[in-house]
Amino acid sequence: MDSAAGLLLLDLIGVAVFAASGASAGVAKRLDLFGVAMIGMVAALGGGMIRDLVINQVPPLAFADWRYVAVAVAVSISMFWLHPAVRRLRRTVLVLDAAGLGLFTVTGTLKALDAGVPAVGAILLGTITGIGGGLLRDVLTGEIPVVLRREVYALASLVGAAAVAVIEWQLPKAPVLTVLAAVLVFALRLGFLKSSWQVPVAEEREYRPLRRRRGNSAPGGRTD
Amino acid sequence: MDSAAGLLLLDLIGVAVFAASGASAGVAKRLDLFGVAMIGMVAALGGGMIRDLVINQVPPLAFADWRYVAVAVAVSISMFWLHPAVRRLRRTVLVLDAAGLGLFTVTGTLKALDAGVPAVGAILLGTITGIGGGLLRDVLTGEIPVVLRREVYALASLVGAAAVAVIEWQLPKAPVLTVLAAVLVFALRLGFLKSSWQVPVAEEREYRPLRRRRGNSAPGGRTD
Amino acid sequence: MDSAAGLLLLDLIGVAVFAASGASAGVAKRLDLFGVAMIGMVAALGGGMIRDLVINQVPPLAFADWRYVAVAVAVSISMFWLHPAVRRLRRTVLVLDAAGLGLFTVTGTLKALDAGVPAVGAILLGTITGIGGGLLRDVLTGEIPVVLRREVYALASLVGAAAVAVIEWQLPKAPVLTVLAAVLVFALRLGFLKSSWQVPVAEEREYRPLRRRRGNSAPGGRTD
Repeated sequence: MDSAAGLLLLDLIGVAVFAASGASAGVAKRLDLFGVAMIGMVAALGGGMIRDLVINQVPPLAFADWRYVAVAVAVSISMFWLHPAVRRLRRTVLVLDAAGLGLFTVTGTLKALDAGVPAVGAILLGTITGIGGGLLRDVLTGEIPVVLRREVYALASLVGAAAVAVIEWQLPKAPVLTVLAAVLVFALRLGFLKSSWQVPVAEEREYRPLRRRRGNSAPGGRTD
Repeated sequence: MDSAAGLLLLDLIGVAVFAASGASAGVAKRLDLFGVAMIGMVAALGGGMIRDLVINQVPPLAFADWRYVAVAVAVSISMFWLHPAVRRLRRTVLVLDAAGLGLFTVTGTLKALDAGVPAVGAILLGTITGIGGGLLRDVLTGEIPVVLRREVYALASLVGAAAVAVIEWQLPKAPVLTVLAAVLVFALRLGFLKSSWQVPVAEEREYRPLRRRRGNSAPGGRTD
Repeated sequence: MDSAAGLLLLDLIGVAVFAASGASAGVAKRLDLFGVAMIGMVAALGGGMIRDLVINQVPPLAFADWRYVAVAVAVSISMFWLHPAVRRLRRTVLVLDAAGLGLFTVTGTLKALDAGVPAVGAILLGTITGIGGGLLRDVLTGEIPVVLRREVYALASLVGAAAVAVIEWQLPKAPVLTVLAAVLVFALRLGFLKSSWQVPVAEEREYRPLRRRRGNSAPGGRTD
């Protein structure tokens, strides 16, 4: 992180690729232009907004610096018109998305550490920053968040956040290494995609959720 | 905004109409009395709570002033018993809802500007204040937020928030004009309803969402 | 609340039981190991995180004290492997969950009062702390929150929060009584389960939600 301008540029690239992913989901859900722009903004700015509220950086960057909103809106609207082309570019978008994940994970973890959050909390917050926007995007479009399903997306982010915490703890004067952590997330994410390696899923068994029921009968009457 | 008492009154009217809209959605979803009251509270207080967290006004007004909760609960419970009558009053509720949207948009934008949020961020926050409660209402009841679908609801709010920012920038001593901005949102919302004018929606094309898939195959293996 | 260590222990027990409920829901939704861990963390830490943001305790405890995350993750992962046994223990989990509800309600209300939140706001915040994690769990797994459906879960929490506020107002030096408020929530929750008593639900009538519609027609054309 040798220059603030470089960091800002990388940050805005992250905003742009996440806006593209959110806008794509909005188009797929048949939202209108405004809805597509909103989903794009939520995906691009949501993770950083949660991060800033947690570390009490208020107003959050998304509100304090107009360039964040401008990039998110411009990319989302472009996606609305360009989405067939982007479909053919799905591989490119996946790559950019992995880059955004790496970057947001690293900057989120670093900002948390700088704000005095202890290591475990900072790792958690870095992961939330990386995956938060996509999670909000899925909640708003009525999907179970992709990040919660058989997908190692979040694992790549978690590993990168932990790497940043270790680097900052052992080698606090080595910004190059934290940049490498972003590359690590990027590589892990793409490697997982390529290898189709999956985190284990619990065996298929009939299973009823804990407190779900139909009709008037009390769950107490059925338990045990 | 010549008097704090007048502003408070208008604010509580906004709370009441949003509570009514939330409680209606809860009744439609077959929630019990408590669930209806909760959805009403979320719809009435959610947008302002996000706003207050963003500008670091803590505790948020919904927690700091008991009248907000009292109005939201009283209206929600009333809706639970009165909902058939309200059905016949759908037009009235739409009108009140548009009034609430106008008011919350304006007060949200003004509070953000007062808290030192730059113009673009304040416009964004004013819009979130106006539409946030309804958005949370829809997420909790399992709907894709109406505000994201073919609906110009959010556009009316955005235009009003932008008008407030321009007025405060050019004519900071003209509270009458900011009240007019609330009227503008109200008129735009009702005008859009009447004219059935719609924001464009992307053409119908077969389209698969970006990272959605079934089974074990990796998306990387299928792309491009 | 005679000892901070005792309070912390009780708090972590609450985290553990809520993590178990969240992880169960994740397993039922066929999430992978990581998704199950995430849902468990959200259920265990979500309510307290909202509470801490509202009272401006930043960073929230979930980020500031690593033991919270550690307990939530360990329990969630255990649930992933142990869930068939837990199924047979559904009654036990319901009992533990009621204990967690009682505890989180009481500590949430107390922390809000300590932070200077007025009584009504503190009761609201105590209830949100108690029910918030389960609510986020349901939103993320695509369910209408159980707490909003015919379930008196939230009512038990509300009564307990109100009891704490009254006790702190009349007898501020009686920590034993606030512990009794947690027991009250616990007993109410289990009593409601046993008696199958239900909060009333609005009569079945055909009813269309307020602003929902299909096709291109404007709602304005149909109202009145």
